[in-house]
Amino acid sequence: MATHRIGDHTIEFVHRPRILSSAAVVGPKEGRGPLGSAFDLALEDALYGQKSYEQAEHAIFQEACERCLKKVNMPRERVQALLGGDLLNQIMAASLAARELSVPFLGLYGACSTMAESLILGSILVDGGYASPVLCAAGSHYCTAERQYRFPLEYGNQRTMAAQWTVTGTGACLLGDEGNCLARTEMATVGQVVDMGIRDANNMGACMAPAAADTLQRHFLDTGRKPKDYDQIITGDLGRVGSEILTELMEESGFPLRESQYMDCGLCVFDPKDDVHAGASGCGCSASVLSAMILPKLHSGEWKRVLFMATGALLSPTTSQQGETIPGVAHAIALEGGDQA
Amino acid sequence: MATHRIGDHTIEFVHRPRILSSAAVVGPKEGRGPLGSAFDLALEDALYGQKSYEQAEHAIFQEACERCLKKVNMPRERVQALLGGDLLNQIMAASLAARELSVPFLGLYGACSTMAESLILGSILVDGGYASPVLCAAGSHYCTAERQYRFPLEYGNQRTMAAQWTVTGTGACLLGDEGNCLARTEMATVGQVVDMGIRDANNMGACMAPAAADTLQRHFLDTGRKPKDYDQIITGDLGRVGSEILTELMEESGFPLRESQYMDCGLCVFDPKDDVHAGASGCGCSASVLSAMILPKLHSGEWKRVLFMATGALLSPTTSQQGETIPGVAHAIALEGGDQA
Repeated sequence: MATHRIGDHTIEFVHRPRILSSAAVVGPKEGRGPLGSAFDLALEDALYGQKSYEQAEHAIFQEACERCLKKVNMPRERVQALLGGDLLNQIMAASLAARELSVPFLGLYGACSTMAESLILGSILVDGGYASPVLCAAGSHYCTAERQYRFPLEYGNQRTMAAQWTVTGTGACLLGDEGNCLARTEMATVGQVVDMGIRDANNMGACMAPAAADTLQRHFLDTGRKPKDYDQIITGDLGRVGSEILTELMEESGFPLRESQYMDCGLCVFDPKDDVHAGASGCGCSASVLSAMILPKLHSGEWKRVLFMATGALLSPTTSQQGETIPGVAHAIALEGGDQA
Repeated sequence: MATHRIGDHTIEFVHRPRILSSAAVVGPKEGRGPLGSAFDLALEDALYGQKSYEQAEHAIFQEACERCLKKVNMPRERVQALLGGDLLNQIMAASLAARELSVPFLGLYGACSTMAESLILGSILVDGGYASPVLCAAGSHYCTAERQYRFPLEYGNQRTMAAQWTVTGTGACLLGDEGNCLARTEMATVGQVVDMGIRDANNMGACMAPAAADTLQRHFLDTGRKPKDYDQIITGDLGRVGSEILTELMEESGFPLRESQYMDCGLCVFDPKDDVHAGASGCGCSASVLSAMILPKLHSGEWKRVLFMATGALLSPTTSQQGETIPGVAHAIALEGGDQA
């Protein structure tokens, strides 16, 4: 049997699955940020005409998937799988969107690493000839995440300086085996769960950075690549605190990241004047930045090859209250410019 | 690019990935049931020496994975991926087990369909040469599920006759591309989310049965097979109510299931005298029955080929309280007897 393994943790996609289209639908605060005009839709109201924020999260997830399909005139009947998830308990935004879209559904939970997890599994489905096209999507909503993971907004708690602001938004990509494309997926490194004993639910960056460093080192060791082999190494949503920790850890590991060549999605979404402290987070952060910034730059040829690594903090209010620490996980996928680049 | 598709919803595994080993660790009530002696470990106490039921759920998940590896002397360092999930919010039992096992982790959420979802994605990883061996696992715990989805046990609410009893237990399988095996995976049908408008959180069977019927019909239409082509069609955990609905729906669809040839894992686990009303449920139900009963019968040759279809109710207390209905999903995977059959 042919193997598509490189080293212990890395997978190669020999057919280089194509990202045929992408879309991002975000909330109003995200729309005011530096990527505002690059999102497909920035809502005027985070409630999106719904009766609850959970319903809005579902509607945003669905809208991003539908816009992604519409851009390439792909009828939903032809979609052979939706792989995705969100931060709601029981990933209800993705599940309800899957119900409305009527496509085969494989639900994922990787906290804020979900977009990379879905792109990796989606690429395997396409590369191996198991399904094409497939939709990969991840979303989050500030108002539901605060209520579920920390406090209801009405409580008005004070945010610490290490806190990140969950992105309201969903990013979706359509992967396929043929056609013009924005980018192609090349290889992926599936991460392990790493836990350095952090207990602070308001410091997601510190929980995720060790996992990011672990996956990044494994990627370089497996592939023989170095940071300079990528035009940009892009982490999911480490924010200011987590990015600094990752930079230090990579310096120590012998794979230092040059500042010009490393960026974090958590530092791209909000206007610095918008008082979000350590930056943006949430499944929807890396997913919407992928669609609004990373794929366009790969498509235009500004970047030839990037490593997209979404990072997740496996935070549970229940286990945290029981004294558990907060583990992190990070998955990396290498993306190359599309055929028009 | 070669395609491994059969029809619109079905995938073929051309190399027939091998289930090299399996293990199930369950609670005391499950240990008293008809499959009691077939489980690898039936605990005397559902708390398993831990301080909370959530911690116990994590420990049980981990124990099942470790026993599965130990049976074939597989060092955990060689495992290239763990695909799995559970019913806890943020799938913490699987996430914490993945941390302890130190293997690459792809978290899944498919409610009680998770074992089939993990076997399908695991089979794709192995069949396509992307990873081998891989661990597939799903678990649940009665005491955590009741608290999270319905009421804390201390509340002592009365259970309706349609209610099912969540299995305390985890089932795990090790999939690989070579070696003696219990069974091999042949093909799989990935289900869509189906919602017939049920709102009763105490009638999971009725929520899941329409999805089960949908996936089953698609499987037969895609493959040209009929129910008689399987020695047994095995649903995850429809229980008494859901099984009856599925039987009626399949009768109407033109693919009637003969009684001798159809079984539900939800009706195999508990002693009928144990007052569990409509039967067993939970991710751990189909996962532990797979290990304790289905794989042994395939291995012994009593069954040559079965269709294993785990079913999930995408129940969320939050969206239910907001008036949402409870959608269902079901994934089917065909299993053939192993090489010693």
